[in-house]
Amino acid sequence: MTYEFETLAVDIDADGIATLLLNRPDALNSFTVTMAVELEQFFLDAAADDDIRAIVVTGAGRAFCAGMDLSAVGNVFGLDEDANPTPADLRDRLTEEPFQSGVRDTGGKVTLAIHACPKPVIAAINGPAVGIGATMTLAMDLRLASTKARIGFVFGKLGIVPEAASTWFLPRIVGTAQALEWIYSAEIMTGEQALAGRLVRSVHEPEELLEAAYALARTFVVGRSPVALALAKQMVYRNSAADHPIEAHRADSLAMWHASTGDGKEGVAAFLEKRDPVFTGKASETPEIYP
Amino acid sequence: MTYEFETLAVDIDADGIATLLLNRPDALNSFTVTMAVELEQFFLDAAADDDIRAIVVTGAGRAFCAGMDLSAVGNVFGLDEDANPTPADLRDRLTEEPFQSGVRDTGGKVTLAIHACPKPVIAAINGPAVGIGATMTLAMDLRLASTKARIGFVFGKLGIVPEAASTWFLPRIVGTAQALEWIYSAEIMTGEQALAGRLVRSVHEPEELLEAAYALARTFVVGRSPVALALAKQMVYRNSAADHPIEAHRADSLAMWHASTGDGKEGVAAFLEKRDPVFTGKASETPEIYP
Amino acid sequence: MTYEFETLAVDIDADGIATLLLNRPDALNSFTVTMAVELEQFFLDAAADDDIRAIVVTGAGRAFCAGMDLSAVGNVFGLDEDANPTPADLRDRLTEEPFQSGVRDTGGKVTLAIHACPKPVIAAINGPAVGIGATMTLAMDLRLASTKARIGFVFGKLGIVPEAASTWFLPRIVGTAQALEWIYSAEIMTGEQALAGRLVRSVHEPEELLEAAYALARTFVVGRSPVALALAKQMVYRNSAADHPIEAHRADSLAMWHASTGDGKEGVAAFLEKRDPVFTGKASETPEIYP
Repeated sequence: MTYEFETLAVDIDADGIATLLLNRPDALNSFTVTMAVELEQFFLDAAADDDIRAIVVTGAGRAFCAGMDLSAVGNVFGLDEDANPTPADLRDRLTEEPFQSGVRDTGGKVTLAIHACPKPVIAAINGPAVGIGATMTLAMDLRLASTKARIGFVFGKLGIVPEAASTWFLPRIVGTAQALEWIYSAEIMTGEQALAGRLVRSVHEPEELLEAAYALARTFVVGRSPVALALAKQMVYRNSAADHPIEAHRADSLAMWHASTGDGKEGVAAFLEKRDPVFTGKASETPEIYP
Repeated sequence: MTYEFETLAVDIDADGIATLLLNRPDALNSFTVTMAVELEQFFLDAAADDDIRAIVVTGAGRAFCAGMDLSAVGNVFGLDEDANPTPADLRDRLTEEPFQSGVRDTGGKVTLAIHACPKPVIAAINGPAVGIGATMTLAMDLRLASTKARIGFVFGKLGIVPEAASTWFLPRIVGTAQALEWIYSAEIMTGEQALAGRLVRSVHEPEELLEAAYALARTFVVGRSPVALALAKQMVYRNSAADHPIEAHRADSLAMWHASTGDGKEGVAAFLEKRDPVFTGKASETPEIYP
Repeated sequence: MTYEFETLAVDIDADGIATLLLNRPDALNSFTVTMAVELEQFFLDAAADDDIRAIVVTGAGRAFCAGMDLSAVGNVFGLDEDANPTPADLRDRLTEEPFQSGVRDTGGKVTLAIHACPKPVIAAINGPAVGIGATMTLAMDLRLASTKARIGFVFGKLGIVPEAASTWFLPRIVGTAQALEWIYSAEIMTGEQALAGRLVRSVHEPEELLEAAYALARTFVVGRSPVALALAKQMVYRNSAADHPIEAHRADSLAMWHASTGDGKEGVAAFLEKRDPVFTGKASETPEIYP
C-alpha cells in the first residue's frame, strides 16, 4: 500500500515500524480539516496493511502539533452552527454521513480510527502538543516525550471542551484526579511534569527521542505475533471497560481458542524446540471476539 | 445567594472561590445528620449559583472531619432498623422520599450532590479526616493535605463498610489494589503516605495549605470559561465510565457544538486578538449533553 | 474443612491466615489442568470456610509459577480444536458444562474463583511468575514481590493472548498505558520494575517476603469484621465498574444497612467503650447487595 498525503509523511522500515510524520512544520503542524481527514484515512488504511506492525507518530520540525489551526477563516471547528443537535440525534444518527459532517467532533473521528487500528501506536512528542495535539496522543497506546515537549489541555482558556474522546482515554491512563487538574487548569506542562503525572512513560533528549521510540516499537514487533497483539489491544481496552470479569472471560476464551489454533501452535512449538517462532497470522484477519 | 448554616460556614472571594468550612471545631467537625443535610443543600445551591466558580472545603480548628459523630444517642447511622431492604427496593424506590430517609446512606446523599455540582471542588485536608471525613473528599475533584492530615478508611474496624459512593471514586483515583489495601487495613495514614499512594496531589505546611488550595483554584477560575469547565467535569466522570470511546465521542460532539457557538467564539477571538477573553456563559445554564 | 491437593498445600494459622502453596517445585510450579481444577476448588471452598480470613499465595521452591506447563503432550491449553466457537456461543452457553470444558479459558476459571472469594488475597511473588503465573496474581487483591521475582506477560512471544481475565484486572491496577506496554513487549521484569509500574506494592529480600505478606494480612484480620471486608471487596470491584455513582450508592445503602444492624453494632459499642470489638458476623453469610 502507498501512502501519499498533503499534511502527513509516512515511512515504513524493514521491521514494519511505520513513522507517521505530522508534516506542516511551518505551521507547527497545526491541525486542519485536511489533516483530520488524512489522519483518519491513514489509520483506516494501516489497519488493513499487514506490512505495518507498529506506528510511531511524531512532528516535523520543532513542534509535535500546536493544536487546531485557529487562523483558518470562519468556522474553525467545522461544525454546523444551525444544527442544534440533541443527545438523541447523535445517538441515532452518528453514522449518517451528512449529519456527521455537520456536528461530529473532528478530532474524535481521528482518535476513533487510531483506537480501532489493531497495532501498537506510540506518540513521540518532540515539542509543543497542545489542544488536539495533546488529545490525539491519548488514543495512542504509549507516549514518549522529549525535554522540549510542552503539553497542554488548553480548552478551558478557549471556552471549549476537551474533545477527541480524550475524557474516555485520559482517566484510564492517569486517573480521574490528575485528569481533572490538567483539564481545569488548562496550563502547559513539560515532559518531566507529564512523566510525574504518568501521562508519558519516559523523557528523552531531543536527539534520542525517536531512537527510543523505535527501540520500544521493536520489542513489540520482532518475534511477536501480530494477531496476538491485535487481539490484546482490543482486549485491554474493551475487557477493562466491562462491568464484570466474566465478560473478559468470554472474550478471552474466544481469543485464546483462535490464537491456540493459529499462531499459538507455532509459538509453543518454537518454545519447545528452543528456536525463534515464525508467525504467519495477519492482524488484518483477526477473528471477531465480541458480539 | 446567601448561605446560612448551623454546622458550616461559607465565604466567597472576589474571584468566585468559595471556602466551605466544616464548622464544629469543638467536636472535631464530626459528621451529624444536620451536617449531612446542610452539606447536601450547600452543593445543590452552589450548583445554581454562578457567583461561585470553584469550592475549597476545609475544617475549622485542628480537624478536617473526624467521621460520623458516634456519640449521638441511638441509631447513629440514621437507618431504619426494621426496613429489611432488598436490592430491588433500592433500585425501584431510591428517589421516593419516605424510603430514602429510612435506608439511604447519608454520606452518599452528600457525595452525590458534590459530584453533581458543576464546579471544581478541592479538599484542603488540614487534620484528621476519618470515615465519612475521608470518603466525602473522594467525590471532590482534587485533594491537598497538610503535614497534620491523618486520613483513614476505618470502616472495617467498626464493622461497617466504606460508604458515600467511595468505592466508585477511590479506584478511579488510586487504582483498585491501593484502594483495597487502605480499606482492608482500615489504618490511619499521613499526608505523605496519601501522596505516595496518589490520593492527594501535594502536601503542605499547615499554615500554607489554604493558600496552596486557593492558588490552584485560581488557575481553574481566572480566564477560564465556567461552562467549559462544567461540561468538562461531567465528561471526565461520565465519558470515562462508558464502555467504548464512541459514547464519549457523542457527548464530545454535542459539548463542542454548544461550546463553539457560545464561550468558544469569544475564546478563539481573544486568542487571535492576543487579549484576555471575557466569557459570559453560565455554569447554571450548561446544556444537556447526555440522553 | 480440610484441604488435600496434589499440586497445592494449604496451611491455616491461628489468626485465620491461610497460606496457599503452589507445590510442584521440581517443575517450577508450572500450571497444569490438575492445578487449575485444584486452585478453583480451593477458592470455592475457602469462600465458604469462615476459619479462613485472608489468603497468602506463594510458590514452593525457587519459582512462584513458571506458566502453563507447555511440556504436556498435545493440546496444552485444553481447548477443543474443532469447537469453532462464536461470540454468541460463549454468551449463551458459558455456564453449560460440556461447552465449558471445550472452550473456556482454563486460567479464567481460576481467576473468577479468586475474584468471587470474599476474603483478602495476597500474592507473595517469590520468583518467576510468567504467563498464567503472572496473570493469576492480578485477580488477587495485592501483590508483594521478592528481589528474585521475575514477572512477564509473555503471551505475545508465544502467539497467544493474555488470559485469565487479566485485561480486566491489569488496567484497574496500573492503567491502560502501562498494561499495554507490558503486554505488547512480552518481556520479563524484575520486582523493582513491577514496583515502579505499581503492579506490586513492595519489594522484599527473599527471606523476608512471607513475613511481610503475613504482617500485611494480619492488619486485614485482627480486630476487623470479616463481613465488612467481604462486602468491601465486592464493592470496590463492582461499584467502581458502574457507570454512575448512584449505582454505588444503592449497593452502599444496602451494605451499610446490613452492616449497621450486624457487626456495626458491636463495632460502634466497642469504640465508645474504648475496648476491642468482638465481631460475630461470618463472611460466608454476607448478605446480597446486588440485584
